[in-house]
Amino acid sequence: MYTGKYYPGSRQELLQKVAQQVSSKRFKHICGVEKAALKLAQLNNCDLQKASVAALVHDYAKERSDQEFIEIIKAKQLDPDLLNWNNNIWHGVVGATIISEELGITDAEILSAVQKHTVGSANMSTLEQILYVADYIEENRDFPGVAKARKIAETNLAQAVVFETKQTMLHLVTTDKTIYPAAILTYNAWVARKKVYDGK
Amino acid sequence: MYTGKYYPGSRQELLQKVAQQVSSKRFKHICGVEKAALKLAQLNNCDLQKASVAALVHDYAKERSDQEFIEIIKAKQLDPDLLNWNNNIWHGVVGATIISEELGITDAEILSAVQKHTVGSANMSTLEQILYVADYIEENRDFPGVAKARKIAETNLAQAVVFETKQTMLHLVTTDKTIYPAAILTYNAWVARKKVYDGK
Repeated sequence: MYTGKYYPGSRQELLQKVAQQVSSKRFKHICGVEKAALKLAQLNNCDLQKASVAALVHDYAKERSDQEFIEIIKAKQLDPDLLNWNNNIWHGVVGATIISEELGITDAEILSAVQKHTVGSANMSTLEQILYVADYIEENRDFPGVAKARKIAETNLAQAVVFETKQTMLHLVTTDKTIYPAAILTYNAWVARKKVYDGK
Repeated sequence: MYTGKYYPGSRQELLQKVAQQVSSKRFKHICGVEKAALKLAQLNNCDLQKASVAALVHDYAKERSDQEFIEIIKAKQLDPDLLNWNNNIWHGVVGATIISEELGITDAEILSAVQKHTVGSANMSTLEQILYVADYIEENRDFPGVAKARKIAETNLAQAVVFETKQTMLHLVTTDKTIYPAAILTYNAWVARKKVYDGK
């Protein structure tokens, strides 16, 4: 299935490299995200190979130490406000750098999809939307609202982005979690579009 | 009651000036905010005169035209992002300028309390917290949760700020409203403190 265009090796080789980086529970999640991403890619005319690579690598850096992320943020002179956050934000936003360097993945859209997979963005390509949503609805996920999210994703990818973004905000506020400011830009942009999708 | 320290005139004169600027419904609300602010000021050792002035003027600019706010934002070279927002944000953040110029109020804390009364801020003085909370719980307000907000405000002003900020976020997300980015800085700062107040 892999042509070498997005990853310099076979899917099997990529699977193994990912498996070496994460716990068995996380590897199961990653495989679930790939399955969901491939389904969403078929439904939304997205390149299946890109969807597979993006899904398989999205949590590649999730188990790296805080120290490693902090060093990369400083060395690459990324936004210093990142230092006020944590692994939840870093593994995507900063993790893309690790993925690019260690796996030889250079496709800008795949790396961008990894960067945005947790926080989202005001503007997201189809691939970016697919990874963002697949990560939320994959078959191992079990939380209130996941069935509804899966149903929406089957019929309208953008509405699924809106639903996930709103639910995530509600979850964070309800559980007294701080909100990464860029996530508000995601929320504001997608909730404004929601009215268009709803036909309001 | 007024000494001329915070407003160059009597309370009666200020009441009249405010009454000339707003609808009868809003004037009733403003009087309710003053009553609640005085009560909170007594409970929290805050200057009653400052609380009264801040409450009476907080919505003074609420019924000005969008055009007037836009002209002030441009003339005073305020944050250009303000132009992307609306009266809900402008009447406090920009309204303080109008209040200062038309009512001769110069006290920095009163003007700051007006500026922050809708969006809040990461750091808020006692007076600023009082106005923010009084605006939310005054006796004419009627929405789910207002009774709880009033009860919290009676025992812990800072916890009332946290409660109001969380409820406002939940309300905005539930009703598909965009969120002014500065409100997230308010939320993040106060929700972080909540754990301290809770003894977690």
